[in-house]
This record gives sequence, structure tokens and C-alpha cells, in this order.
Amino acid sequence: MPVKLSAPTPASLLPVRGIQLGFAKAHVRKPNRKDVLVMTLVEGSRVAGVFTKNRFCAAPVILCKEYLAQTKGIRALLINTGCANAGTGENGLNRAKQSCEALGTLFNLQANQVLPFSTGVILEPLPVDKVIAGLPAAIANLKEDNWLNAAEAIMTTDIVAKGTSRRLVLGGKQVTITGISKGSGMIHPNMATMLGYIGTDAAVSQSALESIIQHAVNKSFNCITVDGDTSTNDSLIMMATNQAGNTEIIENGADFITLRDVFTDVAIELAQAIVRDGEGATKFMTVTVESGKSEAECRKVAYAIAHSPLIKTAFFASDPNLGRILAAIGYAGIDDLNVDNLELYLGNETGTDVLVAEKGGRAVSYREEQGSAIMKESDILVRVVLNRGKESITIWTCDFSYDYVKINADYRS
Amino acid sequence: MPVKLSAPTPASLLPVRGIQLGFAKAHVRKPNRKDVLVMTLVEGSRVAGVFTKNRFCAAPVILCKEYLAQTKGIRALLINTGCANAGTGENGLNRAKQSCEALGTLFNLQANQVLPFSTGVILEPLPVDKVIAGLPAAIANLKEDNWLNAAEAIMTTDIVAKGTSRRLVLGGKQVTITGISKGSGMIHPNMATMLGYIGTDAAVSQSALESIIQHAVNKSFNCITVDGDTSTNDSLIMMATNQAGNTEIIENGADFITLRDVFTDVAIELAQAIVRDGEGATKFMTVTVESGKSEAECRKVAYAIAHSPLIKTAFFASDPNLGRILAAIGYAGIDDLNVDNLELYLGNETGTDVLVAEKGGRAVSYREEQGSAIMKESDILVRVVLNRGKESITIWTCDFSYDYVKINADYRS
Repeated sequence: MPVKLSAPTPASLLPVRGIQLGFAKAHVRKPNRKDVLVMTLVEGSRVAGVFTKNRFCAAPVILCKEYLAQTKGIRALLINTGCANAGTGENGLNRAKQSCEALGTLFNLQANQVLPFSTGVILEPLPVDKVIAGLPAAIANLKEDNWLNAAEAIMTTDIVAKGTSRRLVLGGKQVTITGISKGSGMIHPNMATMLGYIGTDAAVSQSALESIIQHAVNKSFNCITVDGDTSTNDSLIMMATNQAGNTEIIENGADFITLRDVFTDVAIELAQAIVRDGEGATKFMTVTVESGKSEAECRKVAYAIAHSPLIKTAFFASDPNLGRILAAIGYAGIDDLNVDNLELYLGNETGTDVLVAEKGGRAVSYREEQGSAIMKESDILVRVVLNRGKESITIWTCDFSYDYVKINADYRS
Repeated sequence: MPVKLSAPTPASLLPVRGIQLGFAKAHVRKPNRKDVLVMTLVEGSRVAGVFTKNRFCAAPVILCKEYLAQTKGIRALLINTGCANAGTGENGLNRAKQSCEALGTLFNLQANQVLPFSTGVILEPLPVDKVIAGLPAAIANLKEDNWLNAAEAIMTTDIVAKGTSRRLVLGGKQVTITGISKGSGMIHPNMATMLGYIGTDAAVSQSALESIIQHAVNKSFNCITVDGDTSTNDSLIMMATNQAGNTEIIENGADFITLRDVFTDVAIELAQAIVRDGEGATKFMTVTVESGKSEAECRKVAYAIAHSPLIKTAFFASDPNLGRILAAIGYAGIDDLNVDNLELYLGNETGTDVLVAEKGGRAVSYREEQGSAIMKESDILVRVVLNRGKESITIWTCDFSYDYVKINADYRS
């Protein structure tokens, strides 16, 4: 088993008024595990979503986008693990639709008021009969204080359940925000085999919620990578149930930035938890690229570092093989990069920040013992200063271990 | 140890008139291994080179480019393993220059008539004294029939020595071409920690040689990838010694295409040998993308497949987890790709070619047993038909195993 990073299952998650959650063990793929989750939303709730940009997006993603465009009256979410219903063509779309119809019938809703989500093996038909057969059990245990069970129900290769809560006061009213996520491989911006659900009981206008989700995803789920693979099923949903009694938050109005930043903070915590639970991960790496000419070029450098199997295996080995980082900076695709001008630092969460390379080579002041000491830690900061502009970016990734290979070689067996 | 692919050390390599090779055990990094190679070229030889596009290119690469621009009178090559002399700044340049001066002095040549090459650990100063101390021994065993020893002398993490020879008749004269290469990780187009040397005794004009090397590299070394990392030191050199007595081959003149295609064939064999010897590789994968709108978009799809750790680990496990291939096609970056129109085939070297997916999902005719049978083989063909244009591309890569992690985690220890 991989040495796990410090992302413990949360002790508890706060209920959000207006959102109920219920799960079932429906044997979608494996027996005796929670694999179907139903979430219901009180009437008048607002929902916004962002989805994978993969051209091979899964059937449920296609339906989610269609339904969100058709109606503002989303009232339920239906999530299954075990099968991604991706690469399944027309048949897959029909099966996803069928599952929404079935849940809709039980609640007296239109099919397009139910958003479907699937995660698991690609290219296999969704066992929709099993999902539907699980609905009564899921509905039977629907309750507001069920987020932790929900976080467990959406896990696939995840080792820990991921969730977090915040409480704040908006316009004199107490407001709760709770989010859960899943994902541990095939993680890459735009987005990952990553499902995320963040709900609040605050009153938020539709356009404010859309604005918040875009901001939050750019600062969180679009800044993580495990293996560079962008999945077919990534979905992030934000929900606001209007149960807190606050004055509706509108875009750029009072408390908008406050709420947006708390949502973003929750999204970052959920996104980082995915990286910490990265398949086989033993190290959490923060890669910051500073003073670039554009955010785009900073991203190129950051992802060249974060995707390099050579760097990721060196981190796994706690080996300060920093030349591999310089090589990655060099092939990141900045054609006019002057390598003599940049600096590379290695640090940790407690403030250590060692200059490793400058002037095209190893810094004179650098000692291998310094690099070795940092490399033994589980949270490591790689900081590149390009010295050619004012933009910067931070992304998060993990190392690459025997267990990554093992988990992904054995996934279907 | 990794299960090795079928890339045996060549039984013998043909000598090329006008090129002598000598090696030494100079203890650059490890004792008792051939780690310094000297090649000499008869007066009047022509030399052309292509080099890494990494902005962090190593000191010897900088010098090679400089010397090739300064003189047409290159007379010797000096290659060391154990240290890449990359990320070493001004000091690294001086040390590389010093090694060229030392060899030049022994042969009564200018320093810029000697091309330097280094491969090994990055960011460490070149132990130039050890390289220079090894020169007399290398010179003492200089001879034309020494290519196999030379192929061994340039190995680093390589398991097998890589080389091949061809013989043909040009204008009534027998001509020999022999090439050697090294490299097994950090392999990616433009190019890899890859050194390649191909020599012929034919008379070839400078511009013809330049044209041949560009053509050959685009069809060979720029079509392989092991881990997506482009190294700091990649160099491919072609040499023509004018000893065969043929009429000089000029660009687009008689026999030009013939010679170019044999050089290209040699380059492809050397490039494929690098992939077959990929660190930890157990499978050789040929990825062909057909009927794209442009070669560029075919390349995007091919490399998305070839770089996906999820796909590479599935191949390692002999698991026909073909959904991962569809997912990679989907995120390759073709924005207007209609996934319903493409076809995915899986095959082998003996003509098996099974339709796996079409119309956005698994092909109705496909049976998992077919995929499983192909996946058990060591040479596998992945063929994507985009059905949107007339361009195509073929690249080669390998799978991703426990041993890849092991080799790269332990590299410096």
C-alpha cells in the first residue's frame, strides 16, 4: 500500500439546509460497496456546473450540459461509481437518460430536472438496471446530515473520502458551505476523473453562482495534475438552496467576493485532497512559477515540471536530481527563454527556501545536503523565478511511485 | 530486471573507411566501464549535426553548434558518459572546450575541429581531468573495425548496445553506412538523451548531407518517445568520409534519394532500438494516426496516446483498457474533433488489425478476447483513423513498468 499523505477523512461534514443525500449498495461493479448516491435539492435551488473539455466526454456529461441549459429547476443529482458510461455512444446516452427518468418518476420530476454523473471504467455499458434497482434504498436513507457517507459513496480508487465545510455570516445570517470530491488518477486541469459537489444554503443569484464556479475552478481543480490525463467524466457542481434567509448574493454585489473566496477555498482544499490521494502518491508537490511574461508561459513551465515522469520518480526516491527540473524548464516551450536569467528554489511548507540553480547552473551556495533534507519531506515546494515578467501561477501535483504503476496496471482486475 | 524486448546487440558492425574509433575506461563516474570514446575522421570528411531544442542545452551541445558553424574541417569527436555537463554554466563550457583542446593538441588540430558530446547526470561539473587522462588509452586502440566497442562505450542506462550497418552500390562503387546510438530514458522528439552517430565512406556534398540528416531525423528520432522528456544533450551526427570513390552525391542529384533513404532507414532502426531498450520497457508500441487534417493534429493525437501514463501502465498489464485510448484521443487538443466519426484499431506486426471502437463507442463486432490476445504480444500496433483528412503519422513508444520507476528512482545511487 502506498504511504499516504496527510489527507485524513474528515471527522464530520456540516449539513446544508435544503440538500439531502442518500446512498445505496447497488453492486454496479463490485459487491458490498456504496456505489449509488442521490442528492435532492429543495425547490428554488440554483445549480451551476463545469465539465471536462475532453472531446470524448461521457454520456452523463452530455446530458448534464443539456439539462442545465434546458431548465433552472434542477432538483436532484444521481451519481454512480463502477462504470463511467463513457465511449458508449447512443446506447450510453439512452441509459443515462433512463436513470434520470427513473429517479424523476419517483420524485414526480421531469427527467431533465435530474443531473446524472458516472465514474469508473470507460467503454463499458452502464448497468442501468442495477442503478435503478438501487434507487429505493438510496431514497430511504436521504437526509441532510449525510455528506460523509456521500463522500464515501463516490470513491473509486480513492483511499480516503474527501470533504470539507465552512461556516460564515452573510448579511447577519449564518451560512454553511460543504463540499465533497473524488478522484485520484487521470487528474489534469480541464478537469480530471474528478467529481466535485459544493453546496450552500445561502441565497445566490444564478449569474453570481456561475461567476463563482468559474473563478473557483480556475484556482483549484484547473491547477492540479496527477498524471496529465484529462478524463471523460469530470464534473464540478455548485448548488445554492436559498434556505439561509440572507439577502440574495448577486454578482459584484455585497458579500459577493466574500462568498466567492470561501467557495474557492473549499474548492482548493477539495482539489488538493485529490492530489494528496493521487494513485500511489508519497509526496505532495507545490510548483510555483513566478515573474513570467504571461500566465500561459508560467503554466507551461509548471506543467512541464509536474508531468515529467523523470522528476516525479526522482521525488519518489527523495533524490534531489535537480538537473531534471532544469531540463523540464528548458523543454517547456518558451522559445526565447534565457536560462542564464532564471532561478530555481527548493523549499517546504515551513519556510525553507533554498536557491538551487542560477546563471544556467548549480548555485555556488547550494549544498547537496540541503536538497536531500528537503526531499525527505512529504510536502515540497518547487519555485521557479523566470525573471522576465510579472505573472505567476501555482499548481499542485504528486510523485510517481511503484504503486502508481500497480494501481493502474491492476485497475480492471 | 525488465523483460527485454527483441533488440539484441548487433553481432557485428561494418567498418567505414576513413573513420577510426577508440575507447577508454576513464572512471568518469563509475570504475571499470568504457566511458570515453574518440572518433577520428580522415581529412576532407563532411559532418552535419542536429541537436536538442531544449533551452537548457548542455555545454557540449553549445560548442558543437559553434564549431560546426565555424569550420568545415571537423576531424574528431570526443564522447563521454557518466556526466552530461548540462546546467553547468560558464564553467561547463570551459571544461568542454578544454577537453577539445586536449584532444586537438594530441592530433595537431584546432580545438574547434573536435566535437564534444556528454551524457549522464545533469548539473554536475564535468570531471574533465579524468576525460583527458583517458585520451591516450582511447587513441591507442583507434581502429576502423571498432564500432561495436564504440556502441558499448556510449551506453548509460542502456541494456543493449545499439548499432546497424548497410552496404549498397552508388555509381558503381561499394559504399558502407554504419550507425550507433544510445539512450533509453528522457526520450522525446526534438530529441532525446540520445546520441547517434552515422558514418559513410561515400562522397557526399555538405548541403546534401544537411538535407539527408533533416529528412532522416524527422522520420526517426523525432518519432520516438519513452517518457516525454526532451533532454539537454541530444545530438545526432552524420559523417561522410569521401573514401568510397563514388561521384559526389549532391542534393537532388543522382542517387541522392537512394542514399537519403538508406540513411533514414538506419536512423529509424537506431531510433526504434532506443525505444525497445526504453527504461523498464516490456512492450513496443507503434502508434499510427491516419486521415487527419494536418500532420500536426495527427502528431497531437499520437503523442497524447504515447505519453499517457494510464495507457502505458495498461499496456504493461496486457490489459485492453481501450477506453483510456479514447480518452487520450479526446483530450489531445483537436477542438472540432467529432468522436463519432473516428475508428480505433488494435493490431500486431503479423497483420492482425481489429476494429475496437467506432461511432463514439465500442465496436459491435469487438470481443474482449481479441483485445486480450493482442495485448499479450510484445509488439503492438495502435491505429487511429480520424476520417477528416489525408495526413498521417507513425510514432513509436513503449509501456510503463515498475522497472521504469525503479531505474529512474535509483539512477544516481
